[in-house]
Amino acid sequence: MAGCEDDGSTVNPNTDPAHELVRFMYDRIPLARAMALELAAYDEHHLCLRVPLAPNVNDKGCAFGGSLASLMTLAGWGLVELALRARGEVCDVYVGESTVRYLQPVWADFSAEARLAEGADWARFFTTLAARGKARTEVSCCVPGADGKPAATLSARFVAKRHD
Amino acid sequence: MAGCEDDGSTVNPNTDPAHELVRFMYDRIPLARAMALELAAYDEHHLCLRVPLAPNVNDKGCAFGGSLASLMTLAGWGLVELALRARGEVCDVYVGESTVRYLQPVWADFSAEARLAEGADWARFFTTLAARGKARTEVSCCVPGADGKPAATLSARFVAKRHD
Repeated sequence: MAGCEDDGSTVNPNTDPAHELVRFMYDRIPLARAMALELAAYDEHHLCLRVPLAPNVNDKGCAFGGSLASLMTLAGWGLVELALRARGEVCDVYVGESTVRYLQPVWADFSAEARLAEGADWARFFTTLAARGKARTEVSCCVPGADGKPAATLSARFVAKRHD
Repeated sequence: MAGCEDDGSTVNPNTDPAHELVRFMYDRIPLARAMALELAAYDEHHLCLRVPLAPNVNDKGCAFGGSLASLMTLAGWGLVELALRARGEVCDVYVGESTVRYLQPVWADFSAEARLAEGADWARFFTTLAARGKARTEVSCCVPGADGKPAATLSARFVAKRHD
């Protein structure tokens, strides 16, 4: 599988909350379970999730577009959720709008990597959240293809709202 | 559930190929099966698919964004596939790019209705396919909310390629 990898040989305190969040997704979102979602890697700048091809295949034998979009959406949502949790913020996080580009078919297990979009930054996001109880940010996700070039990309806006 | 309905009390020759296609999706796309995909209605202008909320729920108890996007993508893909099959065309149909807007949370079973986008027409699509063996069209999909207003929309480009 192309993409980000975590060899699992070291204990990384950064990935514990990410493991916990992916377990939460797996337990609470039936489609994440159906996709066989797993954590691939996490640090403060990116979250990478992965799935096997078999439960995410389409009629042509490559990755189903809905699985690609769902995995990228989960990675983006998880990135924002983890940034909030790291700062002790308890919010609901929603995806507001997203654009997906399907660039090449994916014939193997695949991963999706989420980062803040160019021009977005956490400082502004948390300043707005502190002032208004609500903030939004743009996230970029990518599923790398076998050749390392993007097989699918997602640009999405996520909204976080503090619990009342 | 808001949205298009087929009461199933009459035999409609238009829906037989649609039933067959939805059975094909269910059999060949594991995520469609995990979502418990069903046909709601079909005529030459629109295809409506539906799913129960339970297998498509998120951690907040409303519809998972990935399920909304997947259902709308399947409805759009199915609309194009059925138009091709009705004309005896054997093609692979791919989604190329799509934009999803999540407008309000969905708290019940839901449906997605696909139609050709405004300005797109089948005549031009099939003329291009005949000339080049490949054609693209824009499709609009909508998940109606409980109040009848859109809860989510998708605008997507689908590409059909004749088998060599």
